Amino acid sequence: MSLREESSTAHAPAKTVLRGAAISGSLRRASANTGLIRAGLQIDHVDISDLPLLNTDLEAAAGAFPLAVEAFRDKVRGADCFLFASPEYNYSISGPLKNALDWASRPPNRWGDRAAAILSASGGSGGDRSQYHIRHVGVALGIHFVIKPEVFTKAHQLPRKFDDDGNLVDPETREQVRKLLLALQAFALKLQGKSADSE
Amino acid sequence: MSLREESSTAHAPAKTVLRGAAISGSLRRASANTGLIRAGLQIDHVDISDLPLLNTDLEAAAGAFPLAVEAFRDKVRGADCFLFASPEYNYSISGPLKNALDWASRPPNRWGDRAAAILSASGGSGGDRSQYHIRHVGVALGIHFVIKPEVFTKAHQLPRKFDDDGNLVDPETREQVRKLLLALQAFALKLQGKSADSE
Amino acid sequence: MSLREESSTAHAPAKTVLRGAAISGSLRRASANTGLIRAGLQIDHVDISDLPLLNTDLEAAAGAFPLAVEAFRDKVRGADCFLFASPEYNYSISGPLKNALDWASRPPNRWGDRAAAILSASGGSGGDRSQYHIRHVGVALGIHFVIKPEVFTKAHQLPRKFDDDGNLVDPETREQVRKLLLALQAFALKLQGKSADSE
Amino acid sequence: MSLREESSTAHAPAKTVLRGAAISGSLRRASANTGLIRAGLQIDHVDISDLPLLNTDLEAAAGAFPLAVEAFRDKVRGADCFLFASPEYNYSISGPLKNALDWASRPPNRWGDRAAAILSASGGSGGDRSQYHIRHVGVALGIHFVIKPEVFTKAHQLPRKFDDDGNLVDPETREQVRKLLLALQAFALKLQGKSADSE
Repeated sequence: MSLREESSTAHAPAKTVLRGAAISGSLRRASANTGLIRAGLQIDHVDISDLPLLNTDLEAAAGAFPLAVEAFRDKVRGADCFLFASPEYNYSISGPLKNALDWASRPPNRWGDRAAAILSASGGSGGDRSQYHIRHVGVALGIHFVIKPEVFTKAHQLPRKFDDDGNLVDPETREQVRKLLLALQAFALKLQGKSADSE
Repeated sequence: MSLREESSTAHAPAKTVLRGAAISGSLRRASANTGLIRAGLQIDHVDISDLPLLNTDLEAAAGAFPLAVEAFRDKVRGADCFLFASPEYNYSISGPLKNALDWASRPPNRWGDRAAAILSASGGSGGDRSQYHIRHVGVALGIHFVIKPEVFTKAHQLPRKFDDDGNLVDPETREQVRKLLLALQAFALKLQGKSADSE
Repeated sequence: MSLREESSTAHAPAKTVLRGAAISGSLRRASANTGLIRAGLQIDHVDISDLPLLNTDLEAAAGAFPLAVEAFRDKVRGADCFLFASPEYNYSISGPLKNALDWASRPPNRWGDRAAAILSASGGSGGDRSQYHIRHVGVALGIHFVIKPEVFTKAHQLPRKFDDDGNLVDPETREQVRKLLLALQAFALKLQGKSADSE
Repeated sequence: MSLREESSTAHAPAKTVLRGAAISGSLRRASANTGLIRAGLQIDHVDISDLPLLNTDLEAAAGAFPLAVEAFRDKVRGADCFLFASPEYNYSISGPLKNALDWASRPPNRWGDRAAAILSASGGSGGDRSQYHIRHVGVALGIHFVIKPEVFTKAHQLPRKFDDDGNLVDPETREQVRKLLLALQAFALKLQGKSADSE
């Protein structure tokens, strides 16, 4: 995700470009959650499907993190902000997403002091319960979350919001995603001590 | 875990033997959490380290659950009650445990209407935050949890509670584990409509 | 709330009558949450509007609980099970309900080892977030909650569910409330070691 | 609480003074939580003991908020940041504090877009469970919380941390409180688009 301020000009681009990392908690090929990530913005989707289940014996045995873990941790470290798209599994975070959050938190923690936003597409009320658990876990990770808007996408409610490949096709949801990403951008800049209107 | 009522006699054993499944959220060989499970009781430790990261595409591709998942789901279905031993990762459930909970909840849900107890060994306050998230997830799974005692084992506090292989060596904690398992047994029988003293 | 088993006969009523206490977290006269309590069953609605804000200095000064608190605690102690009807205020329990829960938990705790069910009428997703906080608090109180059904009443969604006095007029919601109360009855009997079908 | 930047000079004081409002969830005269608020800084302690239990009928009857509520809401609106000192009651927020949070959130919400920090003095693990519920409620209120340090004061652990009047006398805890308030100040300035080092 390359977030560029709307107000930025050719004279001061370097300051206002943020590198975002988007992580989907669903590994399905046609995932609606991954679809939310693809919607409307240039995006660096960081894949988490190759991570092993967390086992710190793996660190000890190799004297280092497994390769896939190390690569993931580097991407997290290099990002200015995060976008989590999370399905709700049993009223909480998906196992694969929790696994990824934990791997990159192993000392030294790679998440700290960054801004993040959360999207969720789910049945029922749209995944709100998973989002509150992500916010709770974020306290341990050192992540500051955008508060508003909260975007809960009722994946199974008509009119159909995603096509068969998981692409977001609902204009209203696309607009919500766009607003959330603008809020993420503004919040990330604020946390970095760069006010959008001071540029 | 084979839980047998203290008051049971040779004449009525069938009714009062419970099959328990114990699941550790830590995959480390010398895990203190797995050590809590080994402490003091005959136990069926159900391993979750071979489960793939949850991806429902894997079901669709095969028209069935992956073999390791199917085997795990069978063990869950066959148990009368559950014992979860969970480390606290980032103030919540470990990724591997959440992954296992989710796999066995895929329709038809294999957890429902059973009793469970939770142990945790962790730094800080002993894992209380992970336990509340497990209880929260348990509402979705249909699991009833033992309330008292709550066992939070401060893994890094002296005197040393676990040896180098993760075996529980602290008598006080062993006694807490024993009391929790008795409470689990009584609660499981109650939920099955079998009062311990009516046998 | 007087809960009587459907299968009970004139010969064995004493065993199967449960005294329930219903508590609404909303103090409004025409509250939809209080309306949920009135729906369909004989009920002992325990009023919490006269309780002072919790301050343990009040205990110390009088050498006893304030009168309104003592009366409330007696009603809680005398109940076999509880029905909480809670609005969702800021994603959690209402202040008045939390205040009441805390007063009756002052030593000796009056809530312990009983069954409870939760109803909520609220905007948005119907109050689910308040219900999970009640369940969490219930671990401290020693309350076992009915798991299914979960009844979340979307108070502001059409067709209108409540009349101007807060009476529940929606047949579908009435049926959900009835099912929840039957589940509460069965669960309370089970916890007391009385199976419904053994009578 | 008057928070003044350490680096501020006589030339630019107006910009960098923050008005803080400190709110204790305990109404006891000698409360350790209120004592945490008094520790070490000029403070505006906003009393919440006169607020009625929340009942929106009170608004409708008067066509306005009750006087005590209106006065409280004005203080909240006038603050640049908040300090919550919360005891843990039954693993959650105290009733009086929840009541106060809810009153000031009635439309128009008076909490939004401000920074806050949380202190807690409690038995057991020091009140961590109440703090996570406050953070959860803060999502609804629009409050951004300081993440680190997390200050959990084990009120009953020796050496004694509070004197008979609830004054904080433990040097180590005083230092933690000081660090938390500095973090609050820096975070509040950042959210206002004022970087401490840019003054």
